Amino acid sequence: MISEDIGGLTIYEVPSGTVVGDWVIPNEWTLRRSTLTDPNGKVICDSDINNLHVVNYSEPFDGQLELKELQQHLHSLPDSPGAVPYVTSYYERRWGFCLAHQVRERLVEGVYTVRMDTDLQPGSLSYGDVVIPGDSKKEILISTYVCHPSMANNELSGPVIATNLIKYLKSLSSRRYTYRIVFAPETIGAITYIHNHFEHLRQYVAGALNLTCLGDDRNYSLLPTRDGKHRLDMIARHVLKHLCKDYVEYPWTSRGSDERQFSSPGLDIPMISIMRSKYWEYPEYHTSLDNLENLVTPAGLQGGFEAIQRTLCILEGDVFPRATVVGEPMLSRRGLYSTLGGSRFSANTNVLLDVWSYCDGTTSALDIAHRLSLRFDEVLEVVMVLQNSDLVSITPVLLN
Amino acid sequence: MISEDIGGLTIYEVPSGTVVGDWVIPNEWTLRRSTLTDPNGKVICDSDINNLHVVNYSEPFDGQLELKELQQHLHSLPDSPGAVPYVTSYYERRWGFCLAHQVRERLVEGVYTVRMDTDLQPGSLSYGDVVIPGDSKKEILISTYVCHPSMANNELSGPVIATNLIKYLKSLSSRRYTYRIVFAPETIGAITYIHNHFEHLRQYVAGALNLTCLGDDRNYSLLPTRDGKHRLDMIARHVLKHLCKDYVEYPWTSRGSDERQFSSPGLDIPMISIMRSKYWEYPEYHTSLDNLENLVTPAGLQGGFEAIQRTLCILEGDVFPRATVVGEPMLSRRGLYSTLGGSRFSANTNVLLDVWSYCDGTTSALDIAHRLSLRFDEVLEVVMVLQNSDLVSITPVLLN
Amino acid sequence: MISEDIGGLTIYEVPSGTVVGDWVIPNEWTLRRSTLTDPNGKVICDSDINNLHVVNYSEPFDGQLELKELQQHLHSLPDSPGAVPYVTSYYERRWGFCLAHQVRERLVEGVYTVRMDTDLQPGSLSYGDVVIPGDSKKEILISTYVCHPSMANNELSGPVIATNLIKYLKSLSSRRYTYRIVFAPETIGAITYIHNHFEHLRQYVAGALNLTCLGDDRNYSLLPTRDGKHRLDMIARHVLKHLCKDYVEYPWTSRGSDERQFSSPGLDIPMISIMRSKYWEYPEYHTSLDNLENLVTPAGLQGGFEAIQRTLCILEGDVFPRATVVGEPMLSRRGLYSTLGGSRFSANTNVLLDVWSYCDGTTSALDIAHRLSLRFDEVLEVVMVLQNSDLVSITPVLLN
Repeated sequence: MISEDIGGLTIYEVPSGTVVGDWVIPNEWTLRRSTLTDPNGKVICDSDINNLHVVNYSEPFDGQLELKELQQHLHSLPDSPGAVPYVTSYYERRWGFCLAHQVRERLVEGVYTVRMDTDLQPGSLSYGDVVIPGDSKKEILISTYVCHPSMANNELSGPVIATNLIKYLKSLSSRRYTYRIVFAPETIGAITYIHNHFEHLRQYVAGALNLTCLGDDRNYSLLPTRDGKHRLDMIARHVLKHLCKDYVEYPWTSRGSDERQFSSPGLDIPMISIMRSKYWEYPEYHTSLDNLENLVTPAGLQGGFEAIQRTLCILEGDVFPRATVVGEPMLSRRGLYSTLGGSRFSANTNVLLDVWSYCDGTTSALDIAHRLSLRFDEVLEVVMVLQNSDLVSITPVLLN
Repeated sequence: MISEDIGGLTIYEVPSGTVVGDWVIPNEWTLRRSTLTDPNGKVICDSDINNLHVVNYSEPFDGQLELKELQQHLHSLPDSPGAVPYVTSYYERRWGFCLAHQVRERLVEGVYTVRMDTDLQPGSLSYGDVVIPGDSKKEILISTYVCHPSMANNELSGPVIATNLIKYLKSLSSRRYTYRIVFAPETIGAITYIHNHFEHLRQYVAGALNLTCLGDDRNYSLLPTRDGKHRLDMIARHVLKHLCKDYVEYPWTSRGSDERQFSSPGLDIPMISIMRSKYWEYPEYHTSLDNLENLVTPAGLQGGFEAIQRTLCILEGDVFPRATVVGEPMLSRRGLYSTLGGSRFSANTNVLLDVWSYCDGTTSALDIAHRLSLRFDEVLEVVMVLQNSDLVSITPVLLN
Repeated sequence: MISEDIGGLTIYEVPSGTVVGDWVIPNEWTLRRSTLTDPNGKVICDSDINNLHVVNYSEPFDGQLELKELQQHLHSLPDSPGAVPYVTSYYERRWGFCLAHQVRERLVEGVYTVRMDTDLQPGSLSYGDVVIPGDSKKEILISTYVCHPSMANNELSGPVIATNLIKYLKSLSSRRYTYRIVFAPETIGAITYIHNHFEHLRQYVAGALNLTCLGDDRNYSLLPTRDGKHRLDMIARHVLKHLCKDYVEYPWTSRGSDERQFSSPGLDIPMISIMRSKYWEYPEYHTSLDNLENLVTPAGLQGGFEAIQRTLCILEGDVFPRATVVGEPMLSRRGLYSTLGGSRFSANTNVLLDVWSYCDGTTSALDIAHRLSLRFDEVLEVVMVLQNSDLVSITPVLLN
């Protein structure tokens, strides 16, 4: 569906059993309609109604159990009695159902019928990517994950924003960077991607964004790079400060997504996550309440998109201006200065000359914005006025 | 007058129409006695009484106007009704008179006689400089401006202090730096100076002081270099902290004098302004109240001179001491130590050994003063005692 | 005694008159039983009871004096009337007795008999050292002083801890560093040591510990290196923070022991003193009250030993771990990870992966401990788990 929407995604299949770094691609899990029926014939869990009802990677099972025995296969949340939890069993064979705690508490004694119609057979891990070329071979990697889209904020919002970013990036008449957008399962998908593209990533990727939890409209948050001092961090903080003064910046120890792989020692790609409500930090996380009725909104998605877009605008737009004249320019003959002096000149002239005073060729528009407590786009506008007046020349800022 | 006072100033004339960087030398303005007379024959404004009465660069005009028409040519300050404002009209031909608002409000209806006896003709821009040689070809540039000496703090105080500094510098038996003192009109004068001396300035000038607003005795203030981290900033803060603990340090965005030219991108001379009340920041600024009765005092000028002189003393006097013995020196055989031990040794011995402990050849007397929270001259005195005892050798600190 | 206890100390004798740097070895002082007897035949001071009763370096004297004349030779402490002060007379010939102020106030009028049986004759200064070899020729210097062991905290505790550290270091199956432990008189002993071993110290010593004031159990304190930013400072602060959160860190200006010589300009060995109650800072300092009954305790000495031992453990144990896999390791197949996912993984797994995320080969276990606010030994344990699982390789951290 994504491939159709964006006009082409390269999809890769990696067979079960393939060794990828420290890992091995596991068997592929297939879920068909699976149900749990109570002694009275009432269907308690039905994967066709909500696939969260089935513990992910459940092995096949057909049979009847007493309630007491069944309880060991059930998962619910006493603290959130209306929510169906999301549970997975990686790398250990078992089966189970997930249900609302309030439903579980009303289960009657007797014999239940389990129909767990799944396969855990050799198959393949799937991932896709798309590369949008730019003027430089330097790449910005954008990663999002496709392993549990049944939930809306974490994680349907990432692929949705990624899809729209691809359209946005393609719509630009030119791009400074090459963009590589990756859709893969979290953790093992990223590890597989790194395994298969290691030399290329190491050589070309200058920075990365992880797209996750971008759909609700509660607040903004940032998971910075490992040392927190990369230009990407500076850009993200600038964007978020101006979108929402009280965004939350989490420490590196709160990481929990693809930066664990892409920023891994030995690869060390600086990766940030600009998010709305962060995984782990909102009550609906990893339950059926993380949905489009309850949490994710059009405004939330729009805000998430905007934060990422503004970040890309700085990556694409930041420049080093360098003054072409020595001594302040004569603004009056360019219509940029009040001709009646004697009092402090106007605010706009001040901003123009303040910006100009930093145009030494090594201080970027974003750096100047920080020094002058202005927004990046305000400074860039002044730089463009100066450039149009031949008062500065510019060179693009590229991440190292 | 200055040239006579200091025994020789090189004066340069640059003809109108000369291109200097981004600018062109404008026509020269000549003011002869100009007057505004009311319908009753009373002289309201007379440039011979106060030349601030005439808008600077007013074009010639002779004629009679009704009060209503005249009003468009009058300038006054409702918020400071007793003050005659200082107004200039750069680069646009017009004429006008400045007067106290309380006088303006009492003007009677009727026909006024204007006699604006000026010239705006090709002429020249004048500036002067004097170079006082030192042991090194490295130069300290001292800049002050001569464009509106009708006002006392801004700006007669700068040329007055500059003149006295020249005498002081010449009186020294030797100088570490070469000093270049420049008297020029603000902005276009500095730009012209840079244009005519660019390669020399870029090659030899290691640091610069701007002399402005040095005459009142209200407080001290500092306009630091652009990045605020130059050794000149450190020196100025040290001097001002010990002269007056609560001096005001302004941000770079508050700049407004010759640092706009000399610290311009492409030349980037680190320049500071040590001031008393800063331009823009005192109520008498750019009015007839900025005078010797009202604002500038002998004590204020003396304090301004002292701040600059102490700055030069550190520039001339700071040294890197390097210990000549390993292990603490034996102070007792030099009479520098109490011979009866057992209790903590005396404060003076402590200071001596504290200073000595930093004499590693890369930490200057000023650096040591900062580490030990002492005054520069106190530390230098200790360094001299150590040098006289052959316990340290010294090398001068020169700005890069 | 120390030599016997530790199985061999190299002892050096340097004759009086020898020039050592800026100093000259003085005559040697010998004290035999010396007494002060009052007019009634009562012995007021007896060096056999407490050798602090004699001013150190007193010249010989036999005679009788009136009380008034005697007073000029007496030393006592009005503010601590029960204490016998420790007084020395370096480099000036005199003699004197020290006594409790409460005893001095009750002295009767009359003729006193002085028997000061001392020698001040050419002899030698004695010092000793022991070198315990390690894998590297880089040395850790451990200095302690043996000039006034009559007092317990300052300074019998240093030699006592040093003696036990030597036994501990010898008991290790291997050592990363070579250790050089020096027993010498303070000041001139250290200066003599530097004079005789300068080239070796400069070439091989990477860091140093001064052992002093390690015996009471009041608090911990630190005298850092001159610039306070050496890895030794970081190690000491880490150790003390975890031993005792409110230890006192003194500024360099509070130094007063062998760092004055070993950290002298021109040698510049980074030396720290980890102490209990610092010299000068406790009321019993340099009096007869600094003793084993009043101040120094077994628990205090044990705590002092432990602080030094932990410091050596970090010096010997810190490593740079470097990840051997790219992307997070697959913990589950190593039994290091819960197999039932979906909720935040356990604290232990978190710590394991947090540590792992910093294993870039340039961040040491101690650096990681600081980043994660953990104890060094906790992080080292995790690093060892990772190494045993072949997930990291390690290289030792050596001081530059």
